Amino acid sequence: MGSIGIVSPQAMHFAEPLRLASGARIADYTLMYETYGTLNADKSNAVLICHALNASHHVAGTYADNPKSAGWWDNMVGPGKPVDTDRFFVIGVNNLGSCFGSTGPMHVNPDTGKPYGAAFPLVTVEDWVAAQARLADQLGIEQFAAVMGGSLGGMQALAWSIMFPQRLRHCVVIASTPKLSAQNIAFNDVARQAILTDPDYHGGDFYEHGVVPKNGLKVARMVGHITYLSNDDMAEKFGRKLRNAAENNDYKFGFEIDFEIESYLRYQGDKFSEYFDANTYLLITKALDYFDPAREHGGDLTRALEGTRAQFLVASFTTDWRFEPARSREIVQALISNRRKVTYAEIDAPHGHDAFLLEDPRYMNVVRAYYERVWEECQRGTAKEAA
Amino acid sequence: MGSIGIVSPQAMHFAEPLRLASGARIADYTLMYETYGTLNADKSNAVLICHALNASHHVAGTYADNPKSAGWWDNMVGPGKPVDTDRFFVIGVNNLGSCFGSTGPMHVNPDTGKPYGAAFPLVTVEDWVAAQARLADQLGIEQFAAVMGGSLGGMQALAWSIMFPQRLRHCVVIASTPKLSAQNIAFNDVARQAILTDPDYHGGDFYEHGVVPKNGLKVARMVGHITYLSNDDMAEKFGRKLRNAAENNDYKFGFEIDFEIESYLRYQGDKFSEYFDANTYLLITKALDYFDPAREHGGDLTRALEGTRAQFLVASFTTDWRFEPARSREIVQALISNRRKVTYAEIDAPHGHDAFLLEDPRYMNVVRAYYERVWEECQRGTAKEAA
Repeated sequence: MGSIGIVSPQAMHFAEPLRLASGARIADYTLMYETYGTLNADKSNAVLICHALNASHHVAGTYADNPKSAGWWDNMVGPGKPVDTDRFFVIGVNNLGSCFGSTGPMHVNPDTGKPYGAAFPLVTVEDWVAAQARLADQLGIEQFAAVMGGSLGGMQALAWSIMFPQRLRHCVVIASTPKLSAQNIAFNDVARQAILTDPDYHGGDFYEHGVVPKNGLKVARMVGHITYLSNDDMAEKFGRKLRNAAENNDYKFGFEIDFEIESYLRYQGDKFSEYFDANTYLLITKALDYFDPAREHGGDLTRALEGTRAQFLVASFTTDWRFEPARSREIVQALISNRRKVTYAEIDAPHGHDAFLLEDPRYMNVVRAYYERVWEECQRGTAKEAA
Repeated sequence: MGSIGIVSPQAMHFAEPLRLASGARIADYTLMYETYGTLNADKSNAVLICHALNASHHVAGTYADNPKSAGWWDNMVGPGKPVDTDRFFVIGVNNLGSCFGSTGPMHVNPDTGKPYGAAFPLVTVEDWVAAQARLADQLGIEQFAAVMGGSLGGMQALAWSIMFPQRLRHCVVIASTPKLSAQNIAFNDVARQAILTDPDYHGGDFYEHGVVPKNGLKVARMVGHITYLSNDDMAEKFGRKLRNAAENNDYKFGFEIDFEIESYLRYQGDKFSEYFDANTYLLITKALDYFDPAREHGGDLTRALEGTRAQFLVASFTTDWRFEPARSREIVQALISNRRKVTYAEIDAPHGHDAFLLEDPRYMNVVRAYYERVWEECQRGTAKEAA
């Protein structure tokens, strides 16, 4: 089990306009992507990895200029890893509206000659999938062995199974949900309000002012981060430990840092505000809020999933209170009602929502075992038939 | 069962300086308070009500000039109500550092002639209790029939039982905790960061600038409010309902309000930012974070409660995820280890942390039954002996 080693991102340009769910359209756009492994002769071994809120096309491997730049799912994707790049041709793609290279709010709006800013149209999970499908077209991939993602990435995988039922044999949905709850939306709106009311946001045109709404982004990230961690894990890691407890085990009686958890969260917030784009953050929270495939079926998820043809792996984590296991079970139930083949794993892991990114033998083994099956199918050449 | 009717706040001034836990001192101060019912001849029927984050001395009744000004626990305190003002002499007191009349950051610092602002010293739960004890002295109340509070108010009741074991016969601790968890502190710090980084905060001296850090306060309140409600209750009340669903059942594809839950939370945030003081909010979140009576006993709550003499009613709510029932059970366990008399009620109520303020027959009946016993004791004149 080794690392992929040095990888390089690629860019693909699409000259054809893309019509969005909002009614807006993007005249032309670029998607950044990376690939790992080799596409086989019948192009049956491709796996698409969809990213969540703050990730990108850089799923695995490292960049030549930075040995610390391991991809966000480097523990999952690589030679001998659960998604084995000695077997599969894995594609990571950066979504529209992101701040990591694909066309987004930081880029120049051809209509105005200035950065899009808040004028970048809101995109939905379905818009992302439509854009990803064009990338697949260009790469000559008619049908994926699997489309896979965690959290918001899982929503994209699910949308693939609905929008392009013939184009994936397996759909892997991890730590996800068929729709956000009121509480999920509420946390997203807190984050948005923090950004929108930061004076440095300038209605989204902060690029022109040479500033970044760092304070808003920081608060947004802090509140988001709390929802990624489990209560118990936070208690275990931080509890009520004081910062610099060794030198002075007393409260500071001011608004500086008293507790380790404050130090940790503020650090996470600061770091995030230095690399993430505020308009992208806003846009992605809206894509999360809007995702609800059952909506056009009167709230009936079973009907929404009626047209799917893939086989499914659905996985959730016991301590995930952002998208708790019950949300995954809703997906499983609806799939079973449609007589789809579903494997469901509810993994007893302590790390809350973040567990989908972390090393956990039970989790990794579930995914590994599932991909063994996907690979056996590839080898049996049952690829095209399965759909 | 009626209402108390018209009530009036009173002010009591204390010329004696108060030494605080931080080492700072307040030269002199005023506490606002209200009383309901009549103090009996042997002064054995007094009940002190301690308030939580955003409440005040105005516990029950209404003000003459505003019929909508019912006190925050008007359902709990009044003639024939669980805390029956036909029997008990009930005192509501506004804490130091509050923005509802007791000396706080908005008031003039005698040392500078300007409002305290952020220079108002941080106060702890124990400081509040010490100040409340002086009020009791002035009112000639040697021993309370009960000291009672919910959430942060419950912490004060608990601190009373530790600091002044002889001065209360009963201690009523509702929806509270012996200390905040890392997650609790984390949410508080998000709120603080939102306020502290609002440019209108001006390092706490916003009064002089004629502004209020409304955006920061709004975000702080929004995130706080989410933690007061249960996930299920929010799902039931709001779910994914769209605002103005009737006229246009579609997403807005912008950052205005799409969902009812956004509308509700923003409204709550806006309203709060119009009446609550930012420095008070900061200060109270720190009092919450710092409360931890077991701390000076190496984390051993049993030892911290060793000196208590009161009888206890502890109550929690099943859907409260801010201070979940397990936190109340820690208190109960520590009291039982000390052979204290404890009544514990874990009430199956849907409303999360806010349940302690809401009408719920099971909850109200538990408190009513408990106060029946307190009253019987008063009548038997066992008052002084009990301690």
